[in-house]
Amino acid sequence: MLALTEIPVAGCRRLLRSTAFGRLALVDDSGRTELFPVNYVATDEEFWLRTGPGTVLDRCADGAEVVLEVDQVDPSRGVGWSVVARGSAVRASVGPRTSTGRPAPGPPPWVRHADDVWFRVPWHELTGRRLGPVPDDQPWRGASG
Amino acid sequence: MLALTEIPVAGCRRLLRSTAFGRLALVDDSGRTELFPVNYVATDEEFWLRTGPGTVLDRCADGAEVVLEVDQVDPSRGVGWSVVARGSAVRASVGPRTSTGRPAPGPPPWVRHADDVWFRVPWHELTGRRLGPVPDDQPWRGASG
Repeated sequence: MLALTEIPVAGCRRLLRSTAFGRLALVDDSGRTELFPVNYVATDEEFWLRTGPGTVLDRCADGAEVVLEVDQVDPSRGVGWSVVARGSAVRASVGPRTSTGRPAPGPPPWVRHADDVWFRVPWHELTGRRLGPVPDDQPWRGASG
Repeated sequence: MLALTEIPVAGCRRLLRSTAFGRLALVDDSGRTELFPVNYVATDEEFWLRTGPGTVLDRCADGAEVVLEVDQVDPSRGVGWSVVARGSAVRASVGPRTSTGRPAPGPPPWVRHADDVWFRVPWHELTGRRLGPVPDDQPWRGASG
């Protein structure tokens, strides 16, 4: 049987930086929960998102709480990890791409936009869980979801 | 360059049924947006979740709108797909496992719980997008996020 164990913050930070693809949840201006895949770039304290004008991010993210989930799970074996970063997004669209502390080159742009819109998200919460076999001395835990 | 194209509903349904692992977003009873990985089983019109007592799902999902995102993306090549299903969760915990229309054997239980808690989510919205190279005749699109 498997168990979920907490990942220490340092490990969460390392895992978040190890990849550049995740899913973002936020509540839009009509109160609707939106959930969609995103590219991002993480530093040790924040992550950056890039989008185009008119998207949900562009319309709703500025000042809003957003939640980023990143994982690497092998569902067939039931092993893997998931990290969640939560913070308020700040629009950071003015100035050249590499200024104002933006990471260069930034998140890989999947779709080309006439104008890039950037958001910086300093997280105030960073948590992670690892899924794997139960150690012998550990009782079953009801910790999912 | 790459583009996002809509996936027809039949394709979304097929992709959702092709896998059993995704991420679920919901707003909990304190107004906080929660986002976490889940196992699920989808039929043609709904998906099923299983969890344990006391989890966020157990406490908050009944009657709540939940959003499930499933994807398969190769970030390095920028190709893949993402499907999002949205619906109101209905607790379905009474009775033997295979009764009341529950799929058998149901979502793979990662963590063993003393008591299973089930939710059925008939979706009222099912959308998907595919990411891939831009066809020659298609202009760049600003459709991400």
